[in-house]
Amino acid sequence: MSQAHSMKAAVWHGRRDIRLEDVPLPAAPGPGWVQIKVHWCGICGSDLHEYLAGPVFIPVDQAHPLTGLKGQCILGHEFSGEIVALGEGVAGFEPGERVAADACQHCGQCWYCEQGLYNICENLAFTGLMNNGAFAEYVNVPANLLYKLPENFPTEAGALIEPLAVGMHAVKKAGSLVGETVVVVGAGTIGLCTIMCAKAAGAARVIALEMSSARKRKALEVGATRVLDPNECDVVAEIKALTGGYGAPVSFECIGHKSTAKLALDVIRKAGKAVMVGIFEEPSDFNFFDIVSTEKQVIGSLAYNGEFADVIALIDDGRLDVRPLITGRIELADILDRGFEELANNKDENVKIIVTPDLAVAS
Amino acid sequence: MSQAHSMKAAVWHGRRDIRLEDVPLPAAPGPGWVQIKVHWCGICGSDLHEYLAGPVFIPVDQAHPLTGLKGQCILGHEFSGEIVALGEGVAGFEPGERVAADACQHCGQCWYCEQGLYNICENLAFTGLMNNGAFAEYVNVPANLLYKLPENFPTEAGALIEPLAVGMHAVKKAGSLVGETVVVVGAGTIGLCTIMCAKAAGAARVIALEMSSARKRKALEVGATRVLDPNECDVVAEIKALTGGYGAPVSFECIGHKSTAKLALDVIRKAGKAVMVGIFEEPSDFNFFDIVSTEKQVIGSLAYNGEFADVIALIDDGRLDVRPLITGRIELADILDRGFEELANNKDENVKIIVTPDLAVAS
Repeated sequence: MSQAHSMKAAVWHGRRDIRLEDVPLPAAPGPGWVQIKVHWCGICGSDLHEYLAGPVFIPVDQAHPLTGLKGQCILGHEFSGEIVALGEGVAGFEPGERVAADACQHCGQCWYCEQGLYNICENLAFTGLMNNGAFAEYVNVPANLLYKLPENFPTEAGALIEPLAVGMHAVKKAGSLVGETVVVVGAGTIGLCTIMCAKAAGAARVIALEMSSARKRKALEVGATRVLDPNECDVVAEIKALTGGYGAPVSFECIGHKSTAKLALDVIRKAGKAVMVGIFEEPSDFNFFDIVSTEKQVIGSLAYNGEFADVIALIDDGRLDVRPLITGRIELADILDRGFEELANNKDENVKIIVTPDLAVAS
Repeated sequence: MSQAHSMKAAVWHGRRDIRLEDVPLPAAPGPGWVQIKVHWCGICGSDLHEYLAGPVFIPVDQAHPLTGLKGQCILGHEFSGEIVALGEGVAGFEPGERVAADACQHCGQCWYCEQGLYNICENLAFTGLMNNGAFAEYVNVPANLLYKLPENFPTEAGALIEPLAVGMHAVKKAGSLVGETVVVVGAGTIGLCTIMCAKAAGAARVIALEMSSARKRKALEVGATRVLDPNECDVVAEIKALTGGYGAPVSFECIGHKSTAKLALDVIRKAGKAVMVGIFEEPSDFNFFDIVSTEKQVIGSLAYNGEFADVIALIDDGRLDVRPLITGRIELADILDRGFEELANNKDENVKIIVTPDLAVAS
């Protein structure tokens, strides 16, 4: 197999400074690593965030302790592709196999890794933010984060596994949802994925809270039973009325705004659980008496921990349909105009724009 | 048995207005209720709070839906005594038996009561705040809240069951503590009770955070392994150093100050649990990203739910020693000067002042 010595990649250099560049191919994968030829990679809200307001997660002052990355980073972590090279000692995978890759690169040494809580590793090196990612033709990743895709798995669905795994992890944090009424605060990508996963987990009713009309439609399209708009009604009163006067047993906060954490707690009944998934920037004004007096629980949920397997299985058997989530399919060459700028200018109309180095190959 | 037609009681009329009065004896107990001759009743921080800053929990504008109480209330909910009269249909109890009474009077009708979560009943009528309490010679309470005291159970220990049950409930909320290191934020009465219950639950080390020197001594006396003073050291760094660099798996917030909720979260490791017990008055400035990025959990704990039984058993077998908690034994006649005013003026030096209508009878 002859390859060129360079490849196209979208490299973050700074705020409003992502460049489509020719960069060297990744080196041959080291022990335990593989090299993947990228099929599709989705643009994540956090990628957009690095573009518009970064650096957020990208290390710029100090090299990342695990990867050495500093200052520049090939973005992209919601991807799947085909194995092209195996590092030393990688067993169970073959070149040509299609895989998706969990982005939580971890040290394997800290207490959290020892407990299997690799998503909260002390030295977490998230692919595409703290190590080079998949807005490129090739990317190297650790083999222990790979999941094989089933034979007839739709190629482009590979790029949706990662955000769905975020929703699935949050759903699992809440315990059993079967037959329950749950509230999802916000119907952006992660909110929509959480709605889908809550339904897949057997939730009887999923009430979405959303203000954008495009996202309201999407919420219903992916399975929300009902959408309530905080600008149009008293959502807390409405949810209480829908739940016998008490509130829902579980809510998921998928926005990360300082005002919506309290909302996620207000919509649940006493002893209920609010799972926090949003990436909050600002502190909230919050009285912890709201938790003490009601015995409510707040549970943080970060990324995923093994949920790629669940998501792949449920996409494969049809219970998770990723098609409503994909609002754009573009080539890597167009990632700035038709990717980042499109999302920056038309955030509400888009859910997931997926990017491929080569439309001919990935279709 | 001949009784007088009136009795002495400490009646709350308003802020700084608790009166020692002659009031009518409680009526004969109704169906399912009993009348108790009070032996000892402890003064709670919430009683003091009603005295200095009330009304907090006492209904003054509208009659309580369950009890009809409004505006005036005989305080006192940490008590035990002797059954003197049984209402209709009360089975399993006899006059003369010594009992302690769970203070969570509840409706038995709402969804929470149906689930057994009576401590978060929609119509909770806490004894001594929302129904007349036990700073009196006699008090009526529902028989379904009574716990019999074992034969040789120390009489005055009966008044300590209630605050210990608060600590025990919080400890149970955290799951198993055996062999673990836990942090208790604040060594007031509830903090001290939580330290004792955490030790009784098998915690290997209990680190107390406290600033008052009198309370620091008490914390060690009741079993804290170590006391750290936030004015004297960086308690977060110190606790990390004591726990392999990660933080404790569990903390208990027993102060309720706007700044200590975050402290209780900062001292735990990722995926750890912070149980909130304090009665917060003011909102905190809190970034929920601290929870999302660490997958920490916040769990509210209110009063108790059946923990009287555990506490009685562990006092009875000696694993909970209430004596260090009792810093004053006074007669009801002295409750204003030697009770409320003493606590108001010397809060740090006191833990629990217990009150009896008649020292001769209760000793």
